[in-house]
Amino acid sequence: MIDYKKTALKLHKELKGKITVNLTTELDSKEKLSIYYSPGVGAVSDFLAKNPSETKNYTWTNNLVAVISDGSAVLGLGDIGPAAALPVMEGKCMLFKHFANINAVPIVLNVHTEAEIIAAIKAIAPSFGGINLEDIAAPKCFAIEDELKKSLNIPLMHDDQHGTAIVVLAGLINACKVTKRSLSKSKIVLVGVGAAGVAIAKLLHEYTKDINIIPVDSTGIINKDRTDLNQAKKDILAFTNPNNISGSLNDALQQADIFIGVSKPNLLNEKMISTMNQDPIIFALANPDPEILPEVAKKSGAAIIATGRSDFPNQINNVLAFPGIFRGALDNNVTEITTEHKLKAAKAIANLVESPSSENIIPSALDDRLVPTIAKLIV
Amino acid sequence: MIDYKKTALKLHKELKGKITVNLTTELDSKEKLSIYYSPGVGAVSDFLAKNPSETKNYTWTNNLVAVISDGSAVLGLGDIGPAAALPVMEGKCMLFKHFANINAVPIVLNVHTEAEIIAAIKAIAPSFGGINLEDIAAPKCFAIEDELKKSLNIPLMHDDQHGTAIVVLAGLINACKVTKRSLSKSKIVLVGVGAAGVAIAKLLHEYTKDINIIPVDSTGIINKDRTDLNQAKKDILAFTNPNNISGSLNDALQQADIFIGVSKPNLLNEKMISTMNQDPIIFALANPDPEILPEVAKKSGAAIIATGRSDFPNQINNVLAFPGIFRGALDNNVTEITTEHKLKAAKAIANLVESPSSENIIPSALDDRLVPTIAKLIV
Repeated sequence: MIDYKKTALKLHKELKGKITVNLTTELDSKEKLSIYYSPGVGAVSDFLAKNPSETKNYTWTNNLVAVISDGSAVLGLGDIGPAAALPVMEGKCMLFKHFANINAVPIVLNVHTEAEIIAAIKAIAPSFGGINLEDIAAPKCFAIEDELKKSLNIPLMHDDQHGTAIVVLAGLINACKVTKRSLSKSKIVLVGVGAAGVAIAKLLHEYTKDINIIPVDSTGIINKDRTDLNQAKKDILAFTNPNNISGSLNDALQQADIFIGVSKPNLLNEKMISTMNQDPIIFALANPDPEILPEVAKKSGAAIIATGRSDFPNQINNVLAFPGIFRGALDNNVTEITTEHKLKAAKAIANLVESPSSENIIPSALDDRLVPTIAKLIV
Repeated sequence: MIDYKKTALKLHKELKGKITVNLTTELDSKEKLSIYYSPGVGAVSDFLAKNPSETKNYTWTNNLVAVISDGSAVLGLGDIGPAAALPVMEGKCMLFKHFANINAVPIVLNVHTEAEIIAAIKAIAPSFGGINLEDIAAPKCFAIEDELKKSLNIPLMHDDQHGTAIVVLAGLINACKVTKRSLSKSKIVLVGVGAAGVAIAKLLHEYTKDINIIPVDSTGIINKDRTDLNQAKKDILAFTNPNNISGSLNDALQQADIFIGVSKPNLLNEKMISTMNQDPIIFALANPDPEILPEVAKKSGAAIIATGRSDFPNQINNVLAFPGIFRGALDNNVTEITTEHKLKAAKAIANLVESPSSENIIPSALDDRLVPTIAKLIV
């Protein structure tokens, strides 16, 4: 097996940049200079000043997404700041181009408060056709996304929230099929109530209103008696933990059907799984090291185990969702990515697996039906 | 002759974007995904968090410039706003790539005060290796550039100021050779005291300290008795209009040797030129329509006439300067573009014309010696 760390450092240094800007037409004559730059371009700007809604038909914004981060929650590395976050954002831009043929530009922000991040993104927004927020820490990510969705008229999505939630729901739909469960009658323990956890809870609730989710953070079960909760955690209590139980993760897991971890490595063990209901579903999504390794979970009786890793079956990977979501939004002039879009995308991803089985609940990231299938639903 | 306006509109609509983002390596395997994105990229981010000075060796910033505008002074169109400015900024990005092989990304800003523009650019600065400010109105452009140069450690230049000043100085050096003049003994009338005018005055003064420049704006000659001057106009009075004369453009032109117009179309006529000294030098740089047409200026006795237009001889065009300036700054790790750099670039551009003559004072924009010649001076 490749040593990814060593190889990545070596190849990144050799490449000195994973993306590049190219011209869509050559500037090989004085005429072309005069058409695509001064004086010809003046006519285009003059036209757009009078017809602002035509901008995307005359500029590259019709196929352009910004991948924006302040570097405050990068992979498992935490708050490493904008410059160190840049390789991840460049990589995300590669994924946009490779999977959806969307031009994407990495923008890293050297500001970190909600108000400053919102102001900076509002300021640069007319440069882009869509915005993918990435690796911005919770809880500020919630207010930032809410405000920007309200004030900008281009599609915008915090992928750590919604990309993850869409693919988790897709996986759960098929995992329930395989284990002959009803999602609404299952007891779901959701561990990790940051960007991804909150979005997963919300989307599962939108999918099935009477769902039974017990959210758990590093302090224990989230309930109404706790005084240490941020607004996002308070908000999801409106539709989670219906009996307002309290206790530890171990308490939560008793007779649970589904474990969803978006937390940290090695949180779950065999003994804990043995207290769950029969044939439990385990989504151990901490990256790169999951809450429990698949072979251990299997041995403990898990019927289905999914992780974020490409070297195990059932990879829950955002790349299944965001390329198609943005492809559709750009192509169909959608200015807001809605709950309805996310639900449709999740169901469509699930449906691409014709015969779900314990090791095949979710399509491969390389399945080329994904983008066209999802894109046509984003209308 | 092509109808540039009609053709530009048609071709811009067909292209739907003059630039595109491409990958520098294909993502054609799961291994590559794991190296250039997660998990491999995590090692690169982790390394850069600990070694921030290495960022440009591992990301595309080593060859990346942002072309940033708030759309407040676009070509001859004025304050048309960010979206309408985008085609011009995209065009500028084409020039960066075509002439200097630099990746450039257009960023248009939906904020317009000095403080907001400064805040937005500081926020996004870690995304780039250099910044080209473009089409930002005077006088705010001066304070914006000053503050950003002070606070950012990447090369930054407001091209409407300095690109123009460099090429004007280059042209004047050769125009003086042809007309056997000393620039320091010439009376220079500079009409238009915005971004370009102020920068031209400053750079000419740096070139020859005892230069005699009479600056003229739409109200008349700039002098110490006027109470309507902005700070930039006050500042250049420290080294212009040495006898503090007042009056109109006509008054200024009496016995002048050189006219430099960065103002508006058709400002100058035959009669006005006839009051200048013999064999005057006329730089009529208003775009796209100059202060006087070359054939009219010639008939009035002008020894040399330069314009901003590609369809006349002696084209004073920023594209002679900025690609080489930024190529050199990026290649040589130069974090500030200094007066010394600008003077060296101007002299180098002038020197590329081996035998200057009245219709050949400046190299062609397509002269491929320009970028390498200038770049090696930016150290």
